[in-house]
Parts: sequence; C-alpha cells; structure tokens
Amino acid sequence: MGKEKNVEQITDMDVDFAQWYTDVVRKAKLIDYSGTKGFFIMRPYAYALWENIQAELDRMFKELGHENVSMPLLIPESLLQKEKDHVEGFAPEVAWVTHGGSEELPERLCIRPTSETLFCEHWANVLSSWRDLPMLYNQWCSVVRWEKTTRPFLRGREFLWQEGHTLHETAKEAEEETINMLNVYATLYEDFLAMPVVKGVKTEKEKFAGAIATYTVENMMHDKKALQGGTSHYFGDGFARAFGIQFSDRENKLTYPHQTSWGITTRTIGGIIMTHGDNNGLNLPPRIAPVQVMVIPIASHKPGVLEKADELVAKLKAAGIRVKCDKSDQSPGWKFAEHEMKGVPLRVEIGPKDIENNQCVAARRDSGEKRAIPLDELEVQVKALLEEIQVSLYNKAKKNLEQNTRPAKTLDEVKEIITEQGGFIEAMWCGGEQCEQKMKEEAGVTSRCIPFEQKNIGDRCAACGEKAEKMVVWGVAY
Amino acid sequence: MGKEKNVEQITDMDVDFAQWYTDVVRKAKLIDYSGTKGFFIMRPYAYALWENIQAELDRMFKELGHENVSMPLLIPESLLQKEKDHVEGFAPEVAWVTHGGSEELPERLCIRPTSETLFCEHWANVLSSWRDLPMLYNQWCSVVRWEKTTRPFLRGREFLWQEGHTLHETAKEAEEETINMLNVYATLYEDFLAMPVVKGVKTEKEKFAGAIATYTVENMMHDKKALQGGTSHYFGDGFARAFGIQFSDRENKLTYPHQTSWGITTRTIGGIIMTHGDNNGLNLPPRIAPVQVMVIPIASHKPGVLEKADELVAKLKAAGIRVKCDKSDQSPGWKFAEHEMKGVPLRVEIGPKDIENNQCVAARRDSGEKRAIPLDELEVQVKALLEEIQVSLYNKAKKNLEQNTRPAKTLDEVKEIITEQGGFIEAMWCGGEQCEQKMKEEAGVTSRCIPFEQKNIGDRCAACGEKAEKMVVWGVAY
Repeated sequence: MGKEKNVEQITDMDVDFAQWYTDVVRKAKLIDYSGTKGFFIMRPYAYALWENIQAELDRMFKELGHENVSMPLLIPESLLQKEKDHVEGFAPEVAWVTHGGSEELPERLCIRPTSETLFCEHWANVLSSWRDLPMLYNQWCSVVRWEKTTRPFLRGREFLWQEGHTLHETAKEAEEETINMLNVYATLYEDFLAMPVVKGVKTEKEKFAGAIATYTVENMMHDKKALQGGTSHYFGDGFARAFGIQFSDRENKLTYPHQTSWGITTRTIGGIIMTHGDNNGLNLPPRIAPVQVMVIPIASHKPGVLEKADELVAKLKAAGIRVKCDKSDQSPGWKFAEHEMKGVPLRVEIGPKDIENNQCVAARRDSGEKRAIPLDELEVQVKALLEEIQVSLYNKAKKNLEQNTRPAKTLDEVKEIITEQGGFIEAMWCGGEQCEQKMKEEAGVTSRCIPFEQKNIGDRCAACGEKAEKMVVWGVAY
Repeated sequence: MGKEKNVEQITDMDVDFAQWYTDVVRKAKLIDYSGTKGFFIMRPYAYALWENIQAELDRMFKELGHENVSMPLLIPESLLQKEKDHVEGFAPEVAWVTHGGSEELPERLCIRPTSETLFCEHWANVLSSWRDLPMLYNQWCSVVRWEKTTRPFLRGREFLWQEGHTLHETAKEAEEETINMLNVYATLYEDFLAMPVVKGVKTEKEKFAGAIATYTVENMMHDKKALQGGTSHYFGDGFARAFGIQFSDRENKLTYPHQTSWGITTRTIGGIIMTHGDNNGLNLPPRIAPVQVMVIPIASHKPGVLEKADELVAKLKAAGIRVKCDKSDQSPGWKFAEHEMKGVPLRVEIGPKDIENNQCVAARRDSGEKRAIPLDELEVQVKALLEEIQVSLYNKAKKNLEQNTRPAKTLDEVKEIITEQGGFIEAMWCGGEQCEQKMKEEAGVTSRCIPFEQKNIGDRCAACGEKAEKMVVWGVAY
C-alpha cells in the first residue's frame, strides 16, 4: 500500500468546498506540492488531461491556419517597457533574473509573464509586405507571475498555457480573428469539457493590459462561483506603433498591422474538477478523460478471468476507446473507490459469473447506474454509454448555470441574491467605472462580462439608477 | 517581396561550413535572433520539424509505458546542492532568479538546467511501496544553461528538450531502461532522421554530472565533425541516497530505488541541417519533413491549372501525405529555389501541357532528378519516391560516416588523420584520463564514446602505448 491510501474520506464538498477541492487534487494524484514555493508539480494523470486538452485545441488552431513557434523564456527589462499599459499591468508581478552563472547581468531579464513584447520584436524584424500577412502564431509554454496566494491549477506562480499571437492586414480581419478564437475556446468547453460558457466582452476595468478589447468565456463552478475560462484580445495597432512594426501594403505604402492575442491555461483543469466533481472525487467528461474505461477483473484468481479482461481491453482499444485494466493485488472495493476518485467515466467489471453469462457489468461514474452488457455488444454499448455520460455531464452543468443566473434591477437586489443564493447576476450597467467599483465594494461582485446575448432586464443602471444600455453578468470569481 | 529575398546566394558549404550553416538557418526561416542575448526564436518551420520529432519520440516513449509530467521551472539553490557531483557540474552555468515582483527572495532560485533534483524531491514525497515502481516519467520543456558562445540549435542559453526520469526496483531494471531509451534515440535517428549513429558509453571524463554511466548516440556531420545526438544516464541509487528516496520492498524492507535519466534536444535539428543540407539549402528526410510535397502550378493563369493543382493536393492529402500548394504570385523559378532552400523532399509541377498529357512532373530535392508521373498513379508513385529519398539520404550519410571513420594505432597517426582528413578515429585506449587529456591537447580530439561494437584495432593505448582493452571513437565535436 502506498502512502497515498484511499481509505481516508475526502471533505464533504457542501461543508467546505475549498478543502474538498484540495483533497480531490491530492487524492486523485493530479498535483504534488514542490519545494519551490507557489509552484506545483503536474503528475501524470493531470498532465494526460492537459495533453488531451492540448490535442483538441492544437487541432482546431491548425485547422484555422495557425502555426506553433517557440519564443525566448526571458525578456529584457527594456523590451517589457516598450508598451506603457502593458508594462504597468505586468511589471509588478514578474520574476527577475539578475545573474547568469557567476556574473551579474548588465540588464536584468524577466521570466515571461506573457509574450506580446517578444512577438512584436520578432515581427518588427521579419514583417515586410502585405504578402507576409496574416501571421498566425501560437506558443505552448509556461509563464511565471509572482502571485502572493496560490492554489493548484487556479493560481500558481507558474502555469502552463497556450498563447496565440496574430498580426493582420486590416482591423476588421484582426477583430474577426479575436472572435473566431473565442469561439474555439467555447467549442473546447462545451463540446469536449462539458462546460457551458457565457461569452462576452470584458469591461474597460477588467480588460488585458494594452488591449483595446478583451473577450472572454466564463464558466460557473459547482459552488456557483465564476471561473474565467479563456480570453481573446484585440490590440488594434497600439503594439505595432510602440514596436515599430510596419509593412508595405497593396498600394506600396508603409502601414501598421493589427494584432490579437488569446490564451487558455491549466486553470481549465481546476474548472473541470469544480464543475463535475462530487463527494467521491473527480468526474471526467469522456471526450477528455485520460482513461475512459477501467476494466476491473472480479475474483481474478479464478481461471479465465484475467484472460477475459484482456480480451475486453483489446476489443475496446481496437474500437478507439482509451481503456485500462487494473490487475493490481488490491481488492475490487479498493479499486472501485480509486477509479471513482480519479473520475474514470465508466467501470467495466468482469468476473466468473459474467463470463458464464457472456456479459460484463458497466457502472457509470456520473450516476452510479449499473448495467449488464452482452459481450457481443460491448463496443457499441460502451461507446453509447460514454456519449450519454458526456451529454449528461453537460446538461447537469448547464442546469446549474441556468438555475443560478438571476436578474436584478437594483444594488439591493444584487446584494440579496449574492448573499442568499450566490451565482451569476444579470444587471444593467451604465458603463461607469465608479458603478463597477460600487458593485464590488458593496455587493462583493465583479463584472464577469458584457454577454453577447443581451437580455431585456431594464434600462437603468443597478448601481446608480442612470440610463443604461448594457446588461452585465456579475459574480464572485476565482 | 519580403526583406528575406531568396535571390542572394548562400555561402558555399565547402568554403565556409559555419557560415553556410548560419545562412541556411536564416534563409530557410528556421531561426530569428532575439533581443535576449543567446536566446533564439524557433520560427514555424523549425517548430513544425520539432513537433514531428516530438510526435515520434512521444509515441515510442508511451509505447514503453512512460507518462509525461510537468515539474517547476525554478529550483531552490539548496535543492540543487543536494547531490555533490551534480551541483558541481551545473551550478557554474545556471541563471539565477533573485527577485519576485518588487521583493528580494529569501533564497535564490535557478532556472532548471535539468530536473533530476526536482524529480528526486517529488519521488521522496510520493514513493512508498515496490508496487509504485517503476515510475517512468518524461517532461517536454525548455532548460537554461548560461553558455558563453551560442549558435542556433547547437548551443543556446535556452533549448527545448525532453528529459526522461525513471525510478526502478532493481539496478538491473534501471540499467535495461538506460539501454532501451538509448535504442529509442537510435531508432529516431536512423529510421526517421536518416542519420546513422555510433552507439556507446561515455568515458568517466565525459559522463553526466552525478551519473554512474552515460550512454550516447553520436552522429557525424557533413563536415565530418561529431554531434552528440542524445544521452541516457544510469545513476544507481546515488541520487536516491542524497534525497532520501526509499520504498518498502517485497520483503517489507526499506530500500533505495535505482534511477535513470535521458534526453534529446533541439540540437537534433542542427544535426539534420548539417547531415543532409547542401549548397541549395536544407534537405529534409521525408518521414520528418513538415511539408513532404510542394505542388507548384505552372502558368497558373491558364484555365484549369489551379483547379488541377487543388485536385492533386486533395488526392495526396487523402493518401496521408503532408502536401501544400504554392499559389503565391512569385515566379515558378523563385518558388523552386524557395522550396529547395526549405528542403521540401519532393516538388510536383503541374502546367497546361502536363494536364494535356494527364501527368505531372516530380522533382527530387536530394538528387534533382525529374520524372513525369501519370496522374492515375500519383499517390503510389509519390509515396514510392518519398521512400526512395528517405533511404537515399540515409545511405549517403552512412557512406559519409563509414568512409570517414579510420583506425589509428598511435598518437602520430591520430594527428595525421585528424589534420589531413578529419572524421572519426578508432583507437585503443588504456582507460586513463591523462591519455584522454593528451589526445585532446596534442591531437585536438575528444573521446566521443566507447562503442558497443568494438573492433580489433590492437592491444596498446594510442596515447601511452600501455596495454589497452577498449576501442574509443575520437573526433572533433560540436
């Protein structure tokens, strides 16, 4: 038995959601804490989940013509400072390299908190003609931001992400790119991670440092708090002007190109945990689960059981299903709990009686429902069950989002809802930053986004009562 | 036209190989220099090459049961110092982070030059029983080593790599792992990169800091110099003892596990360039080329030409070939030179006359040979040609290696060969470090490895004339 026994219970999620989260992250072997304060180790199971997310995103990026590149890890201080708003946003939270080997560096270098400045420097070198555009780049890497408080996946001093950076001939094309990439993120969440999103634009206060507009997909967690799922930024030609990026346009005139960037991080894994998890642990959507089916031999010392289990694995594997068999010397009960904790969507039990009846038993992780499956229908029924689980997880999360999104007309209503029920609040907003501030100070909520899908809630700002044309979704965010 | 025109000639490789290399790296759009001194930008074409290398390696790693993880980017100084030999090897060349945000750190952190110490710290946390073994981990990431002189791919202050780290119940199992992974590297080189290797073990002097034994695959470049292609290290239980990693063995006794690590880097791309390239630029092995076939429409303004080109692309794509069509407004001649520079293995030309004859023309990048292909045999013939190119590139490199590997019995013979012909020299060695030093000082060669395949060259050390049982391959290395 390992140090990491699975006999201890995890904290009840309805009693202490934060502690439940930490327990799941440890017990499902996703994360280990490292001696480097604020940095986490992504163990194989978490990394496999990230690889599946990467594979879907990378495929979608490439289908839209994007190419991957690798930029330097370190940024000279003078380069970071070239765009005023950007440096103000990031300089306070970067890590500084001051020595290389035994020598002090002539100029200190920061570990990239994001790579806009590096991409801009590169583009200033290589961009020449409208023929070179668009440049559709993406980078898979890690970035460092010196956070004071950290939590596995949700906030770390280092996190893995992808950062897309693109350069376009026209503003219109860049704006379209920004929306297209937001839609890629929405597809990832809704179709693969079974997480419904609210799509919209951030307010001025919440937008990215240096951007003209920041678009976002927002998720609601099981505890009704918001998690920002991914953002896509439109920069106009602001960075291009700051970095002197120009090209000869179709009339042979020197022109500034228009720019975007967009990113999604390993935070997403935190989102999966907090959206689908329950008191038995993780609960993974089949399309993204590292192991979709775990075969458990019952009474495995009996003749023929292990062989039959192998046969099932081979059949499922041949059908394109990610399947494993747990042949360890633990008891079936131990194994059931272990793979429930790890959120494996489907468990398939096979024992002597099953073999006699030419069947196996499938148990769903999401509902606990058990069903006998005739072995000659194995692949078809398992595939159908995995699809059912995927849809069912999405529907449950969608219901959580819908039932916990409520309209409010006044600040008092906002306060009442957030105190008594939590969740998302739809309220009108005049566009003033002081009203946003007021919502935060008095009700403890921040603007998550101005959703693309506006509803008719009223025509007065919930905070100041003045005329308001925009409906904002407010909430308490991770 | 871009700043990067393709009309200028590149330096003749036989006149100045180093300058030829730099020219190719720039002109084939593999690398851009960044403002972060000693750090390089891997442009899309280079990164696509790396992705293809990654895909093959990652598949082979996983087939052997390895799992990917993500470890922290930064290592506390005290952790780096836990294994004496290791810290001595790496501390002089690491980059130090001293500040996070505006605060000075209580302990400085180095950017990982390699991650043995981090893996060991993690294993000390999580390893408990023999049931947990083996732990077969790999990480894809970048590392930083503060080099004084740098060259694209070959030596940079940052490079991309994979680092495998494994922990085993027995020494025998760990030793087997070390050799298995060396064989994976050999397969990558020989079967995918068309680069023959010399497999062997490093001398004490050349082995990895902290290892008991370092195994290596060595390649010979076009200029007959050596490039270390990948290394695999056996650590015994040295790190385990230094970091207090123990497990309960099958007799329930606390025991130290045995450890390995192994890595391959983006240096490999430099090796591909210097093995296969010629005076027209890059020359990529089809199995690893980002674009295997470039279709060039001839007289593309004539009716039906672009449509036919699209048809060819669709057919080749459906046959699983990585194919693109260059429809830019450049001349065919410009396009020929451009895609030769980028080393695309096969060019397919299609013009009005070809369409009339229901054929296209295929031109091999490696030999320049042109051949008409009937369109109804397109996929079959293209596939066969790509295979021919792959084999032909390997055979050419193999011939270069064989013809430039020469035996020597004395130091004078070594000096004569290395001065007049270069290449690899096979010479006996007594095992003394002073003789290795002498070879370096007097002949300018280092020991590349003690090859697994030993030859009977003699029984006296070439350096000192004493009794010698080991044949070493010597050379001038990158």
